[in-house]
Amino acid sequence: MPSTMQAIVKAQAAPGIEIREVPVPSPGPGEVLVRVSAASVCGTDLHIYNWDPWAQGRIHPPLIPGHEFAGAVAGVGRGVTTVKEGDLVSAEMHVACGKCLQCRTGLAHVCQHVRILGVDADGAFASYAVIPETNIWKLSPAIPHDYASLLDPLGNAVHTVLAGAIAAKTVAVTGCGAIGLFSIAVARACGAARVFAVEVNAHRRSVAAEMGADMVLDPATDQVEERILEATGGTGVDVLLEMSGHPKAMAQGFGVLRTGGRASLLGIPSRPVELDFARDIIFKGATVQGINGRKMFETWFQMEALLAAHKLNLEPVITHRLKLSEFAQAMALLQSGEAIKVVLKPD
Amino acid sequence: MPSTMQAIVKAQAAPGIEIREVPVPSPGPGEVLVRVSAASVCGTDLHIYNWDPWAQGRIHPPLIPGHEFAGAVAGVGRGVTTVKEGDLVSAEMHVACGKCLQCRTGLAHVCQHVRILGVDADGAFASYAVIPETNIWKLSPAIPHDYASLLDPLGNAVHTVLAGAIAAKTVAVTGCGAIGLFSIAVARACGAARVFAVEVNAHRRSVAAEMGADMVLDPATDQVEERILEATGGTGVDVLLEMSGHPKAMAQGFGVLRTGGRASLLGIPSRPVELDFARDIIFKGATVQGINGRKMFETWFQMEALLAAHKLNLEPVITHRLKLSEFAQAMALLQSGEAIKVVLKPD
Amino acid sequence: MPSTMQAIVKAQAAPGIEIREVPVPSPGPGEVLVRVSAASVCGTDLHIYNWDPWAQGRIHPPLIPGHEFAGAVAGVGRGVTTVKEGDLVSAEMHVACGKCLQCRTGLAHVCQHVRILGVDADGAFASYAVIPETNIWKLSPAIPHDYASLLDPLGNAVHTVLAGAIAAKTVAVTGCGAIGLFSIAVARACGAARVFAVEVNAHRRSVAAEMGADMVLDPATDQVEERILEATGGTGVDVLLEMSGHPKAMAQGFGVLRTGGRASLLGIPSRPVELDFARDIIFKGATVQGINGRKMFETWFQMEALLAAHKLNLEPVITHRLKLSEFAQAMALLQSGEAIKVVLKPD
Amino acid sequence: MPSTMQAIVKAQAAPGIEIREVPVPSPGPGEVLVRVSAASVCGTDLHIYNWDPWAQGRIHPPLIPGHEFAGAVAGVGRGVTTVKEGDLVSAEMHVACGKCLQCRTGLAHVCQHVRILGVDADGAFASYAVIPETNIWKLSPAIPHDYASLLDPLGNAVHTVLAGAIAAKTVAVTGCGAIGLFSIAVARACGAARVFAVEVNAHRRSVAAEMGADMVLDPATDQVEERILEATGGTGVDVLLEMSGHPKAMAQGFGVLRTGGRASLLGIPSRPVELDFARDIIFKGATVQGINGRKMFETWFQMEALLAAHKLNLEPVITHRLKLSEFAQAMALLQSGEAIKVVLKPD
Repeated sequence: MPSTMQAIVKAQAAPGIEIREVPVPSPGPGEVLVRVSAASVCGTDLHIYNWDPWAQGRIHPPLIPGHEFAGAVAGVGRGVTTVKEGDLVSAEMHVACGKCLQCRTGLAHVCQHVRILGVDADGAFASYAVIPETNIWKLSPAIPHDYASLLDPLGNAVHTVLAGAIAAKTVAVTGCGAIGLFSIAVARACGAARVFAVEVNAHRRSVAAEMGADMVLDPATDQVEERILEATGGTGVDVLLEMSGHPKAMAQGFGVLRTGGRASLLGIPSRPVELDFARDIIFKGATVQGINGRKMFETWFQMEALLAAHKLNLEPVITHRLKLSEFAQAMALLQSGEAIKVVLKPD
Repeated sequence: MPSTMQAIVKAQAAPGIEIREVPVPSPGPGEVLVRVSAASVCGTDLHIYNWDPWAQGRIHPPLIPGHEFAGAVAGVGRGVTTVKEGDLVSAEMHVACGKCLQCRTGLAHVCQHVRILGVDADGAFASYAVIPETNIWKLSPAIPHDYASLLDPLGNAVHTVLAGAIAAKTVAVTGCGAIGLFSIAVARACGAARVFAVEVNAHRRSVAAEMGADMVLDPATDQVEERILEATGGTGVDVLLEMSGHPKAMAQGFGVLRTGGRASLLGIPSRPVELDFARDIIFKGATVQGINGRKMFETWFQMEALLAAHKLNLEPVITHRLKLSEFAQAMALLQSGEAIKVVLKPD
Repeated sequence: MPSTMQAIVKAQAAPGIEIREVPVPSPGPGEVLVRVSAASVCGTDLHIYNWDPWAQGRIHPPLIPGHEFAGAVAGVGRGVTTVKEGDLVSAEMHVACGKCLQCRTGLAHVCQHVRILGVDADGAFASYAVIPETNIWKLSPAIPHDYASLLDPLGNAVHTVLAGAIAAKTVAVTGCGAIGLFSIAVARACGAARVFAVEVNAHRRSVAAEMGADMVLDPATDQVEERILEATGGTGVDVLLEMSGHPKAMAQGFGVLRTGGRASLLGIPSRPVELDFARDIIFKGATVQGINGRKMFETWFQMEALLAAHKLNLEPVITHRLKLSEFAQAMALLQSGEAIKVVLKPD
Repeated sequence: MPSTMQAIVKAQAAPGIEIREVPVPSPGPGEVLVRVSAASVCGTDLHIYNWDPWAQGRIHPPLIPGHEFAGAVAGVGRGVTTVKEGDLVSAEMHVACGKCLQCRTGLAHVCQHVRILGVDADGAFASYAVIPETNIWKLSPAIPHDYASLLDPLGNAVHTVLAGAIAAKTVAVTGCGAIGLFSIAVARACGAARVFAVEVNAHRRSVAAEMGADMVLDPATDQVEERILEATGGTGVDVLLEMSGHPKAMAQGFGVLRTGGRASLLGIPSRPVELDFARDIIFKGATVQGINGRKMFETWFQMEALLAAHKLNLEPVITHRLKLSEFAQAMALLQSGEAIKVVLKPD
């Protein structure tokens, strides 16, 4: 075990990031040291990199970001019983308090006092990371290893899709970033009858088709609502998976949601949004669900089962594989919209 | 059986109403003729009376309004088997098509082609009314007869309260018109732990307390969010029943809804409303339900059971009892906010 | 339109059946006349043919049996609006009363006063059949026509599989008659992670594998419980679909059901069954569902969506295609266990 | 803090019990020492006392039994943050492993590796008890103190009653021991329309009426099924709460359960039971739930809310209050059927 390691460090309260050699952390009681084999980049990391208002209000440098990863157990602290050195693992990086109402009633994914590793404490953009045993997910050998660093965003998709009935349903996915794209694959694997994808970026639209969308629409040029209503015999879709957080996409999504349908909202609007509640929710008798994170750990069992049964092809979403030291390039690729998911490997 | 009857008639596409003597209708095949003993007045009737923009777009005079009533069967058309002359009845006045997706999947209350008697066709502000047998509700003798004309709005309340778990829950009711007030009683009867009521009108606030609200707040003078958060140990309420349709009340309601809570929206905003979806729904992992009408006929069975078990005291909500011929006075009382529920009896 | 037609008639209260020329029925008000293009044979028809104790207690000859079919509308009675001559249709043959508690609360499939066409009144083993419009299912042109006569038993399977969560679940199917086999395909199409099939008949076991079962076991020679527990890491399956009605299969099924799992029972035991309720249900915190018929009409929408999306290959289950006049041969094939599903075409 | 304490000790693998002076235990890391103020006696304790076959297979003497109690925190181990000395507390005595599938998916109450304090390790029939912090329930000051030792069995009742819809439902409770009796009160508090109680013991029947049962039947002399069917218009009850584990009561309970109803089974049959699955579950489309323990900790929040709102009067169930040293007398009272719930106070 080396004493230092490579790490991406948000060192200053300012835009940018540094690659540094820092001490390898050691696991305390109930903690697990993981040697990171792959870590993937999330939009959150871009916020931290850019030091936008959200990052300024939330992040306390110095911080090692990174909350999507996989690796092998390199050491365990006192009392750890569920994994041992060498085990392949990923982890849920939302560390719940275990003591609030939500934690004690099956809603730990919306814990009142959640700490996110990679946001509120050091994460996984490094050669090693320390994770509480409670949050470690031991990987089934049946899971394609290349997908193991994607379980966090895949879990968002699985949580959203399976938050209600999906088999035999018609589905609209508004916004085809990585999670939206994963949702298309998950919906199809779980029996969705038809999936309509709406996305402004041409490359993402082509990936949406690869993931199995039956119809892919460009809100800039297509009559989104007309097209989807026509394709559903005027009824609209049974399920809306809102993945963009964009007011126009939300309006279009609710516009095509059928009476009595389900809208599951994961995309985060950056400011308040105006909605015609009477028409879009109340008279429709719609059910709207706010979706946050992944269920701990029901979603993880679901992901494992779907991946182990080879029901999900995530490959088209992984657009780039880079070294951890090429972090700035990853940021540029994501910023430009050229990349969807970038997987980093420690050098 | 007389050949003519007293009726309230919206005769012109203009404000106002007329009292007329019109022919007693006769029931066709599958229809039931009811001698009306009591009919109560809804806000919808005030819209029709005032001939506001909604009424101008929906109502086709001449029309007998009125969709909340009770009476005795006075005759039945061919094929009617479930009631006979003399039976005491009320009715669901939403006539569903029976053929659309929603009707065929248990969601007839949001039928795509619903016709509402008293809105789209003649209703019950008359000595007699004709109703399809499918929509007739035979009254249990155990139901207090005085409440029988209130089943439509009581059904709205029961549908809203029982749209999710209510036993042992903390509840905020925003807006204490008749349906909001009924909701307080229903929530308490069904095991709600504590009910917080928010209402601008002083008289309605006092009735809210009579109905069993544990805390009644005036948004004009009370710090609504602070008070409810304090009373719930900072957690917020488990359930929001939004009965006002008012943007400020909606914001306050969502502001006190706990993470993982349920918001059931029945009040109808008159225009689009701006909401902080990220904070109020998505990060909270909240479930939001649009509520419309009453479930056909699950809600009716629930109402009957609660009323027959004497679990609901609706008396405080009935502020006035008038003759049908005093319709204009009923309108004035409702307009001024002096009345909550006015029950009319044909002369 | 001919005045007479070929029909299979249970003419006597005794074993056997007759092929007769009978008058073509005419549709009354609200009824639809269908020219039958295909009808498939159910175990119920074998009971009627054999005149077993169940048939003796239920059937009143003369009767045209047959409750699984498809065809084209040949005429409509007064008031019919949803189909017209030439439309391709199938039908739900459980005619619900529409008036009981169950019918009025979304449970028409367990109507207290159900009449089954083909059991309690004339069915579809004939060139023509008359069906109430409420029960007609207009076929989407996207549905493989050859499957259209199988919607009744396929609906049993869809109802059972989708009576709870199925995506990402491990599933045991005990009993691989037609409905059990369909269930395997439906479970896989709806995202089941792994399906274990248990069946005594070798031919049906091979079809179970064709339908997508991951492991197929013979209770006569395999250690069913050991094998399934081992394959699930000692946990047991999430979902049991009991399709046999056989006490030993029920015991094995409950024996492999995991703590907190779901058991959906469709197979009908011919007599009371002894079960270790403490171990198999109570300490397990299991949920057991009695499944009957198909939801009216939610299941039909689900079937249509799955079939139209080409998610189900039912072909391996159709073992024989015969003429209606070869009915006795169909009975013999089913009796011997050689046939699974026999589709009949009027000559 | 004394160094020794009074304790009830199952010292030998034989019938009987001893009162001993034993060392006061000390709390380890994450553990809480509670000074017991009241402990109540469960049927399980009688099994242990009598050393019946279940006890012989499960209990390893020496053991301090007792799993229903309340008291004040007398000391805390390292890392304990949620309670401090002097806090009034009770506890969930099922210690879940936190690592199995069930624990990680919201089903900790059916943990695969549960250890029960008072059964598998020392419990609360002593002046002091040590409990893991995770299992401590801090008592709201609004809860009647006298009820605080009853939360374990009350939780069984709340878990059973609220395992499905209860508001506006008709309910049959078969078996009126303490949990059955609590269920009557909980069902009524949560809006049950009518409660039918079935019990062989005359004293318990009279308490059932005190708890709010609308009709109380003696299976020895009353026509249970006829009476309940008649009282429900031939339909049967919406909900069966089976609290006896007795085959005859189960048969009667299922016999009066309506089509589409819910049966929640908590009573534990001592051997396999024969049931007519076809008639009682499958054709009925019934849902049967195995109920075990209390949900951790949703049920505890529900209990607290109901008790704090003064919705439950448990007093009639507490038939005896004795000193801990009068344990043998408590056993005799329970054995004879004279006592229902005995609360013990350390001397």
